[in-house]
Amino acid sequence: MIFSSRLIEDAVAAFCQLPGIGKKTALRMVLHLLKEEKDRVGNFTQTIARMRDEIAFCPQCNNVSDGGLCAICAHSGRVSTQVCVVESIRDVISIESTQQYNGLYHVLGGLLSPLEGIGPEQLMLDNLLKRVQEGAVEEIIMALSPTIEGDTTVYYISRQLKNAPVRITGIARGISFGGDLEYTDELTLGRAITKRLPVEHYVNMPG
Amino acid sequence: MIFSSRLIEDAVAAFCQLPGIGKKTALRMVLHLLKEEKDRVGNFTQTIARMRDEIAFCPQCNNVSDGGLCAICAHSGRVSTQVCVVESIRDVISIESTQQYNGLYHVLGGLLSPLEGIGPEQLMLDNLLKRVQEGAVEEIIMALSPTIEGDTTVYYISRQLKNAPVRITGIARGISFGGDLEYTDELTLGRAITKRLPVEHYVNMPG
Repeated sequence: MIFSSRLIEDAVAAFCQLPGIGKKTALRMVLHLLKEEKDRVGNFTQTIARMRDEIAFCPQCNNVSDGGLCAICAHSGRVSTQVCVVESIRDVISIESTQQYNGLYHVLGGLLSPLEGIGPEQLMLDNLLKRVQEGAVEEIIMALSPTIEGDTTVYYISRQLKNAPVRITGIARGISFGGDLEYTDELTLGRAITKRLPVEHYVNMPG
Repeated sequence: MIFSSRLIEDAVAAFCQLPGIGKKTALRMVLHLLKEEKDRVGNFTQTIARMRDEIAFCPQCNNVSDGGLCAICAHSGRVSTQVCVVESIRDVISIESTQQYNGLYHVLGGLLSPLEGIGPEQLMLDNLLKRVQEGAVEEIIMALSPTIEGDTTVYYISRQLKNAPVRITGIARGISFGGDLEYTDELTLGRAITKRLPVEHYVNMPG
């Protein structure tokens, strides 16, 4: 693409660095901002810059925070004895958005992956082990992806906590809501049958 | 979606204002920037802010410029007697990217549309008429969309220039490269037959 303005070209190149944004989409964004008031564009860029400059990480759970403890750890209404272990900040947002969990979190920042050279020392585990040792935790809920890396990480953390007085659970695996049995893979379906639940566990059963 | 950080929430809302960006894509961008170095994010936001603050519009053709005349009007190697009339800056970039045109442009900033209340006074036409009156233009090439609005605008401008010593042409209409006759609409196909060209006009003919 040939631009007749260096300013436009630079702005398009900047947007192109974002994930999933190609030149055409970037140009569409730039031309959109060009039509906006200067003040609004100023607000836009300041909001992004402030986010990156001021963001902090929670010393207790590694989640993002606006300074000090994160909003979840600092919330007095949450069950502080439950800790849900997740891979990333993205997962905290996903679980929070379900509004079904009222405990705390621990963000690992990755999963064990020998292939990618990620060993235990790359994970942020120290503050989790410290919380457990201090006796502040009764249940650790593993909410990691059902992959080799996820399961390896679950296994590793379980070994680390073997002698700690803490209950370790994992989120349920089975077929998704709206999923079609015909297209469910054999591993998932096989597990879903062997780990079947009393039908009362299904939500909204008649009285 | 529930974010545990105000900074993240604001940044996601900022990206959501861009065209075609929903909450999930916005969050993906924010988390991407969160992983980047502060300097790089600073460069990103400064590039966008500078673009909006410093952009100017060419007094001769209304194209974007980095100050004063735009790069195209200021280029000494271009044919200054040809002026291609387009709707928007986007169209200048599209035609420039073909590398098939070496004249100048005129950006209207819109098309006549009684339905949307856009009349002649909303278009930027004065500096085009002035250029023609000064005798600087020999050919006006209409490169507007083949819609009712586009054709109305072509008609209006042609009327304005009726007595001016200038040749008015329009870009060719016909079937697209790679288009399938079967799926071409009747209007386009009918016009393509009545406005047929000697086969020598097809590119890369042998001999």
